[in-house]
Amino acid sequence: MIKKFRSSCPIASTLDILGDKWSLLLIRDMLIKGKKTYKEFSLSDEKIATGILASRLKQLEAFGFITKRKLPDNKKENIYLLTEKGIDLAPLIVEVTLWGEKHMRVHNPRINSYDELKADKTLAINMVTENYRKVAAQIIG
Amino acid sequence: MIKKFRSSCPIASTLDILGDKWSLLLIRDMLIKGKKTYKEFSLSDEKIATGILASRLKQLEAFGFITKRKLPDNKKENIYLLTEKGIDLAPLIVEVTLWGEKHMRVHNPRINSYDELKADKTLAINMVTENYRKVAAQIIG
Repeated sequence: MIKKFRSSCPIASTLDILGDKWSLLLIRDMLIKGKKTYKEFSLSDEKIATGILASRLKQLEAFGFITKRKLPDNKKENIYLLTEKGIDLAPLIVEVTLWGEKHMRVHNPRINSYDELKADKTLAINMVTENYRKVAAQIIG
Repeated sequence: MIKKFRSSCPIASTLDILGDKWSLLLIRDMLIKGKKTYKEFSLSDEKIATGILASRLKQLEAFGFITKRKLPDNKKENIYLLTEKGIDLAPLIVEVTLWGEKHMRVHNPRINSYDELKADKTLAINMVTENYRKVAAQIIG
């Protein structure tokens, strides 16, 4: 868990929390794929190790990106939901997606196309965030 | 150095290269601060260790984000410049800056304001990238 920020730079401070190979993928899993449980995160294609998953969820919760709760009808399983701070990462996620699609396919030919995203970034961001808020509200009930 | 990509996701593939606390700061140092030498990078506020700096520059060069060259009048020092692929990270850098300014100041009160960036993102991106291209062209001569 980070204790001290390296500088007054907003980029460096953001990377102090999100600068690893996994944190932003967990945000992606929630925001884009609607995942919300430990089990769902652990089943993603990138195959996160359970120790890393637990540590990243803990840090994201400590810094207010996500909340952890239990649902009334299931007291055993934790449900993780993005806060508005976490949902506000949508524009960043979209930029990473577009950059990755454009520049990483030369290194990783498996990367898919995201033509709808390219056609209208703002629309895509609004759709994703509004949809997430709706689904999250339904889950909380 | 990364050898295998984790999945077909463009976000995961981008993080396979840039998912650490330093790589994006080196891009920032070049694009925003005009830094171009090993010594200049090592003097940044975040105080990167020389071993990490060498390893990150090597990986950024291997994946075509930056080029390394020597100038005719200085055969000793390496000059690092962003390629178009690296310059194309400007929109992502801007989104990280805006998100960090908005959401990380509660954790790190030292973070500065970036009002000009907020006023017109597209203009800011165009100014930064055009300015970088001009400065880089002058350096190469």
